[in-house]
Amino acid sequence: MISMIIVMEIGAPQPEIEAVANYLKEVGVDPLVMPGQDRVAIGIPASLSADQRETIEGIVRAMAGVSKVTQTSHPYKLASREWHREATVVEVCGTKIGAEFVVMAGPCSVESYEQMHESAAIVKQSGATVLRGGAFKPRTSPYSFQGLAEEGLKILQQVGKEFSLATISEVMSPDMVPLVARYVDILQIGARSMQNFPLLIEAGKSGKPVFLKRGPSATIDEFLLAAEYVLSQNNPNVMLCERGIVPLDRTYTRNTLDLSAVPVLKEHTHLPVIVDPSHGTGVAKYVPSMALASMVVGADGIMIEMHPQPKKALSDGSQALTPDGFLALMGSLQQLSGFVKK
Amino acid sequence: MISMIIVMEIGAPQPEIEAVANYLKEVGVDPLVMPGQDRVAIGIPASLSADQRETIEGIVRAMAGVSKVTQTSHPYKLASREWHREATVVEVCGTKIGAEFVVMAGPCSVESYEQMHESAAIVKQSGATVLRGGAFKPRTSPYSFQGLAEEGLKILQQVGKEFSLATISEVMSPDMVPLVARYVDILQIGARSMQNFPLLIEAGKSGKPVFLKRGPSATIDEFLLAAEYVLSQNNPNVMLCERGIVPLDRTYTRNTLDLSAVPVLKEHTHLPVIVDPSHGTGVAKYVPSMALASMVVGADGIMIEMHPQPKKALSDGSQALTPDGFLALMGSLQQLSGFVKK
Amino acid sequence: MISMIIVMEIGAPQPEIEAVANYLKEVGVDPLVMPGQDRVAIGIPASLSADQRETIEGIVRAMAGVSKVTQTSHPYKLASREWHREATVVEVCGTKIGAEFVVMAGPCSVESYEQMHESAAIVKQSGATVLRGGAFKPRTSPYSFQGLAEEGLKILQQVGKEFSLATISEVMSPDMVPLVARYVDILQIGARSMQNFPLLIEAGKSGKPVFLKRGPSATIDEFLLAAEYVLSQNNPNVMLCERGIVPLDRTYTRNTLDLSAVPVLKEHTHLPVIVDPSHGTGVAKYVPSMALASMVVGADGIMIEMHPQPKKALSDGSQALTPDGFLALMGSLQQLSGFVKK
Amino acid sequence: MISMIIVMEIGAPQPEIEAVANYLKEVGVDPLVMPGQDRVAIGIPASLSADQRETIEGIVRAMAGVSKVTQTSHPYKLASREWHREATVVEVCGTKIGAEFVVMAGPCSVESYEQMHESAAIVKQSGATVLRGGAFKPRTSPYSFQGLAEEGLKILQQVGKEFSLATISEVMSPDMVPLVARYVDILQIGARSMQNFPLLIEAGKSGKPVFLKRGPSATIDEFLLAAEYVLSQNNPNVMLCERGIVPLDRTYTRNTLDLSAVPVLKEHTHLPVIVDPSHGTGVAKYVPSMALASMVVGADGIMIEMHPQPKKALSDGSQALTPDGFLALMGSLQQLSGFVKK
Repeated sequence: MISMIIVMEIGAPQPEIEAVANYLKEVGVDPLVMPGQDRVAIGIPASLSADQRETIEGIVRAMAGVSKVTQTSHPYKLASREWHREATVVEVCGTKIGAEFVVMAGPCSVESYEQMHESAAIVKQSGATVLRGGAFKPRTSPYSFQGLAEEGLKILQQVGKEFSLATISEVMSPDMVPLVARYVDILQIGARSMQNFPLLIEAGKSGKPVFLKRGPSATIDEFLLAAEYVLSQNNPNVMLCERGIVPLDRTYTRNTLDLSAVPVLKEHTHLPVIVDPSHGTGVAKYVPSMALASMVVGADGIMIEMHPQPKKALSDGSQALTPDGFLALMGSLQQLSGFVKK
Repeated sequence: MISMIIVMEIGAPQPEIEAVANYLKEVGVDPLVMPGQDRVAIGIPASLSADQRETIEGIVRAMAGVSKVTQTSHPYKLASREWHREATVVEVCGTKIGAEFVVMAGPCSVESYEQMHESAAIVKQSGATVLRGGAFKPRTSPYSFQGLAEEGLKILQQVGKEFSLATISEVMSPDMVPLVARYVDILQIGARSMQNFPLLIEAGKSGKPVFLKRGPSATIDEFLLAAEYVLSQNNPNVMLCERGIVPLDRTYTRNTLDLSAVPVLKEHTHLPVIVDPSHGTGVAKYVPSMALASMVVGADGIMIEMHPQPKKALSDGSQALTPDGFLALMGSLQQLSGFVKK
Repeated sequence: MISMIIVMEIGAPQPEIEAVANYLKEVGVDPLVMPGQDRVAIGIPASLSADQRETIEGIVRAMAGVSKVTQTSHPYKLASREWHREATVVEVCGTKIGAEFVVMAGPCSVESYEQMHESAAIVKQSGATVLRGGAFKPRTSPYSFQGLAEEGLKILQQVGKEFSLATISEVMSPDMVPLVARYVDILQIGARSMQNFPLLIEAGKSGKPVFLKRGPSATIDEFLLAAEYVLSQNNPNVMLCERGIVPLDRTYTRNTLDLSAVPVLKEHTHLPVIVDPSHGTGVAKYVPSMALASMVVGADGIMIEMHPQPKKALSDGSQALTPDGFLALMGSLQQLSGFVKK
Repeated sequence: MISMIIVMEIGAPQPEIEAVANYLKEVGVDPLVMPGQDRVAIGIPASLSADQRETIEGIVRAMAGVSKVTQTSHPYKLASREWHREATVVEVCGTKIGAEFVVMAGPCSVESYEQMHESAAIVKQSGATVLRGGAFKPRTSPYSFQGLAEEGLKILQQVGKEFSLATISEVMSPDMVPLVARYVDILQIGARSMQNFPLLIEAGKSGKPVFLKRGPSATIDEFLLAAEYVLSQNNPNVMLCERGIVPLDRTYTRNTLDLSAVPVLKEHTHLPVIVDPSHGTGVAKYVPSMALASMVVGADGIMIEMHPQPKKALSDGSQALTPDGFLALMGSLQQLSGFVKK
């Protein structure tokens, strides 16, 4: 196949064409020079490593006489469905993520044993199988509540065991991976950390299932390349999470939930795709409809913020569902699943 | 109520504060000066016309000592649900848009009587009630097919009558409003024309129902202000259409369909809200799931491109459903509506 | 040359490959099938019309077994510097736009003869050569001041003659082109009208110089295709204007002025490129530095809002310079031009 | 002053108004209830901590009868020029950043002693005073060159000493802060790490000058809040760097350099503002004009990628200037500075 096409300018002189061809030969790539009516195109009829792709494209773009450089294949491989047809199923404490619709729910932050116990009871009652709760809170402001740290992880672990729920919590720096991995079942990489490459590598090495959130300005290819970092550490248990992209309009929602990313991702990767409508909208009243829509467009699950008393939440209270709202949503999802299965 | 707040800089001297207060008095607005610990805020405790809002905000922002100006109420009124609680229902040829889920379908362009006849037969068979077809095609390139013009409108009208379907077609300039209004039941204003104010006014004056598409970079407030232009011509029959916003990533979809705009719009306006997943994604294979999601999030209907032979379409073939694909989608919507009604 | 590359999926079966090749033959394009290690790529070794490009890409994307379709050449031709090496110079009333740095200045709206006379005197005094003033104001809100219409055009023309200044004013709909063309020297197409194709065609047909503003979400290619519409009416006198793109952050500026678009445009097109820092920022205090930067990055000129009494402006007062501020900027530009010429 | 305004819906019943007022009292804030013609607004006439702001806004937004919540003051304080009028000057090895125009230059990655020695000789010759070079490279792809790590830092330090240049290098995770701080004079926080809060805190604690790049989708307020994290660790030596925001159009540049952010930042913060046109455009040929424009709009300096042999660079070769190109730019900046000082 042709993995890159270099289009020369109209009337580019022969030495410029040869300079490009010679550069490609120098770096070990055989050029296919294709003369045409107005100008010449040079194809690279070989697979390139990501390293080669990036370097060659950069250099060639800067060479005299070059009009356009186009990559004609995708930059990721382990994450690609083209190389791995069957869907990946990540099994955590009996929940088969990728094979059944999974609901991960709980408060934004672990605040106390009582708060988590109350939350977990509702999560369990609803039929959801994964309990979420943040122990380290990456707040936009340095003056906001920053989380309970290890004490929070212990509470999460204990409550998870009491209710037989799998647990998930965010890890924010590579040195914290062993600590978080000791207590929880799934390591969450937050949207702001999607391209924190040292963290991706450590999370990958831990062997734990990794839940990777899409960065707010990440393209689909950048998202899958971030997943590739984790996968390349011989850790196949990666889940992707769409959680809203940078909004055109910050007046009514905090982010723009990109639901068409779900079918796009399901087509191009074998990894499970989860949607987080709580962060995706930032507004509790819009969460239920976007959660139902996530199921309809083919997501493998959702992550929902629910707090026993949202008005007293120490963080993100405005996007958390109440217990009643959450149980009602779970009922609706149950009914909708009958429709979706048909 | 306070409709605008002007926050002065810390330590702004008294003459600067007075200059702002005096300017407000000059333009007939009574300022409410509120001294505080660090600085002074000046409120405007009165309703302002949109004209006043825009002018006052602009001027005050440029005055010495002013740190921030914030509008605290919405700039639209006729479109606002606050002033018009009950949902608007636009009735066209027996279809009650806003009261029942409506499907508008047909090819991007009217190409021939045969093509429209074939399309309309499928639309009718499916249970949809509105037939779409473009007579003037605003193509990005001047060298592309530009439409059949009045001949296309005649075909659309005739076929609509044969099958008892309401018809919708785009009008692109104010001078064309009477022509298009003569032949079709609903005037469509395209996304690129959302802020074509002379067109909005003419469409409003025509008295015909107006179907207004959201511009690709329009905020919710800009969208509702565009609707306000039409409504202010004493034309209450306005429908809004979310059709995708400017994408972060153009690799896999043509636009980003902003589905959370549906519940946001339903909350803030009484006008019917339709979704166009065909333009919203630009890719036929993603249309069905996004169409179903539109119903789930509370849209009042969808607009779908369907072509008897997409591969031979003269425009936008890549996003048109085949007749089989469309009929399958209509079946799914029918089933899903059972769920949604609960 | 290869104008399009179609990359098939890994292991796409022979009939799928043949279906693509056969479709291309049907539409009169000779496919070049290039087998590779993992998969097949199909090149189109021919120039395509814009119509063919769009249609073929759309159809092929939707065919079975196709993984990716990439266009390898630009979609515009008349606007391209590749086909027209020397810079276009638009001469208007003695000003050579494209050959010398041009300043277009004046108020947002024509409000009265006195206001325009006062403005023109300052414009003339400053050394600028083009007088701007809007007669039809496309305001976001229907309740704002809408302009003086033909009366405004007459004032603009008269004042232009008195001071020997060329004039520019916006035309908003195709039916108004003859009216505006009767009074002014340059037709302005506003950002919201960049893809108002009927308007572009009428403006092109008028034979008048056309000043085309970039739409707030338009890519460079879309911008140049809009210019192509005007050029294709045998009107070579087109100027491009960068005026800010949709902002990431609306808190401090109204738009994001995309200054790197200037060198990008100067490289890819022969048309003059003007910058409008008044709309590009929306805030008068940021205008002078962005105006100077426009000269430094290679713009052929700037368009500036200046009002004799900004606080009394009927529109956009917050972004207009005062006469003193404008004259100071002109002095700085004069000094800077000594540096730039070196 | 009023730091937040809560606007109730038209006709919101008295108990809803009281519920909001009572909630505010509960959390220790005294509400100012302002009845109006159509509806009630509730002001908060007190300074709020960032924690309170976020929590209160979230909760109140979700309460019955609330139409709109608006913050009327800025969320940052240490970074704000309102509280710290005089410009901060960061002195590093004799260079006074914030008081003179500073140039930081060097290759993307440290590749070898020879490459850095050659680079530093050119940097020194040009008159620039800070040498850059990455030891850890956060590449988008896991298969790309990842940097020389500590060995690279040693080379950077040694070469810096040989030529009496200050040095800057990126630190990517909190645990690496002590290592990087041992070898370099300025710690760089990359754009992808702008909201890596553990890293910001560690960098702040190190006491070293911190060079903070703006995240690609960060608003000005988010950027200043990230700086606030560092400042709140009692580290006043923070520099801000605009390096391009998420682009509308990825065809011709890698990012959109947001030059108007420079005057906006200079107005709202006392911290030095540097521009990186190399990453800001991603294309070497656009770097010189954008570098000159940075000086014109008031930046305190620039960061430039320069490589002795860009075509052999192991990373980002396409955006690096050649030595000749860099020296020519430095000559132009020297001349331009004469203009700017006037």
